Amino acid sequence: MNPIALLDYAGVAVFAATGALAASRKQLDIIGFLFLASVTGIGGGTFRDLILNVPVFWVGNRDYVLICAVVAVVVFFTAHRVESRYKLLLWLDAIGLAAFSVMGAAKGLAITGSPAVSVITGMLTATFGGILRDLLAGEPSVLLKPEIYVTAALVGAAIFTAGDVAGLPQIVSGLAGFAAAFAVRGGALRFGWAFPPYKSRPGRRPEDIP
Amino acid sequence: MNPIALLDYAGVAVFAATGALAASRKQLDIIGFLFLASVTGIGGGTFRDLILNVPVFWVGNRDYVLICAVVAVVVFFTAHRVESRYKLLLWLDAIGLAAFSVMGAAKGLAITGSPAVSVITGMLTATFGGILRDLLAGEPSVLLKPEIYVTAALVGAAIFTAGDVAGLPQIVSGLAGFAAAFAVRGGALRFGWAFPPYKSRPGRRPEDIP
Amino acid sequence: MNPIALLDYAGVAVFAATGALAASRKQLDIIGFLFLASVTGIGGGTFRDLILNVPVFWVGNRDYVLICAVVAVVVFFTAHRVESRYKLLLWLDAIGLAAFSVMGAAKGLAITGSPAVSVITGMLTATFGGILRDLLAGEPSVLLKPEIYVTAALVGAAIFTAGDVAGLPQIVSGLAGFAAAFAVRGGALRFGWAFPPYKSRPGRRPEDIP
Repeated sequence: MNPIALLDYAGVAVFAATGALAASRKQLDIIGFLFLASVTGIGGGTFRDLILNVPVFWVGNRDYVLICAVVAVVVFFTAHRVESRYKLLLWLDAIGLAAFSVMGAAKGLAITGSPAVSVITGMLTATFGGILRDLLAGEPSVLLKPEIYVTAALVGAAIFTAGDVAGLPQIVSGLAGFAAAFAVRGGALRFGWAFPPYKSRPGRRPEDIP
Repeated sequence: MNPIALLDYAGVAVFAATGALAASRKQLDIIGFLFLASVTGIGGGTFRDLILNVPVFWVGNRDYVLICAVVAVVVFFTAHRVESRYKLLLWLDAIGLAAFSVMGAAKGLAITGSPAVSVITGMLTATFGGILRDLLAGEPSVLLKPEIYVTAALVGAAIFTAGDVAGLPQIVSGLAGFAAAFAVRGGALRFGWAFPPYKSRPGRRPEDIP
Repeated sequence: MNPIALLDYAGVAVFAATGALAASRKQLDIIGFLFLASVTGIGGGTFRDLILNVPVFWVGNRDYVLICAVVAVVVFFTAHRVESRYKLLLWLDAIGLAAFSVMGAAKGLAITGSPAVSVITGMLTATFGGILRDLLAGEPSVLLKPEIYVTAALVGAAIFTAGDVAGLPQIVSGLAGFAAAFAVRGGALRFGWAFPPYKSRPGRRPEDIP
């Protein structure tokens, strides 16, 4: 199995785990775990394949859905042992983000040949599953927090793409992209990294605007 | 008209009615009724067709959009007579869920030939329209309630698929799947059926986590 | 450049600006501006292309993503000078709505040849980007407000389609559709135009229903 495919399976598994953890926080039943784990695990890649106009990856390969199901069951029986499920969710999400930023970029580049599209599909694949999870589970959206999130996906996708265009072996540019994306997002989680805030004021509620 | 196609039209009509009822609860205008009725009525099937990479069903056949429009107008002029629109919404949603679990599975099986994909497309088709309706109308999501919901779609899709793979006539496996899904969801609505809760604690709000 | 293509670029730019303004209201960082600007600017057209089963427009033409990026940066450095970002957001949204109602209808008509599909793709293209923006940014949904919104898109798409079917030059029917949609939505914003409310009562919260 090539390293990019491994990143793919790993990304699906950890995103599925974040979906199942969100289900646990909402005290859903086992089917709720399966559903949120699947949507989160395969949501980003599904969106990428629709955009690229290629067959959706999990329709022809049942491994992915199986991975989501196994992960959901394992989390169902172990989530209560974790002290803070939300922190675990955020860290697993960081791993998935890093894996999918490379994987999404690799597929975008392979199919369109355009580095610009590659960076965008990397970013979308990495972030879409988490956005969907937060919307469906009613969690606060990772998008709206001050800490760096989308940027990490952008960095990973850009580094992989640059390395691949420069002719590096895929395992090198893939690992470099993964490591960079995880470092950026991990730093944001651990140290609260955020861009310096631009002088701006928060929006008023629409009903308070004269 | 074959029985599966009938289920399809019926499913679109009742899901459109749930969308229009949600519009009535939010006191939208007639166009809001048309919009939410259409999104809910054809949303699940649209998503199924995108996933299966086949032409979207309502683009080539205007009957579906017409059904949604007629249903929206009828609900617009009658919804105030209903004592509890939310209860009616939930029961119609149960009928639509049962119809689409079979219809979605039948289309998935016909196109991919894979029983695993068939069960998943059945589940997605049956639940996606309602999830979209709740998101757009700001209703509490059916996904996050304790009563059985996704499970009913899963049961209907699995029974239809098993019957069809076993060589039963489509009308038999279709009716069996529909009846089973409706019985499961109806029982959940009437008697509060839910899976025994797993020992878990609710998630803390992110800002309360140290 | 033909007039319909110009409407397309203009629509992408103003929708991107509304996404960036929403990002400013939520005090996101520059990447948050880029992300919301892109999703809002190209979301409606992406959905249209998926429905029509044609290649997604921005995958083969990097101009669109570039426009979104430039607009996001400009708004990032100027949004604080605007007195009411929310009002500006609503007015730019009205321009984008009008442009996309024509553009979406034109593409739907060109590809399917069906006036009914044309009106629907016009409506969807015009409204989907804004709905996505409000969902992702946690803004109150334009859909749920009493003022006319979807109707304006419907009017623009219908007038363009009627004109085109009647054989008028595209620039005439396009401008007529744009002007009509903008007039309807602008009137709704300026004068609070809304359909006369139907005698209805607001929905109770689900937990208050016996």
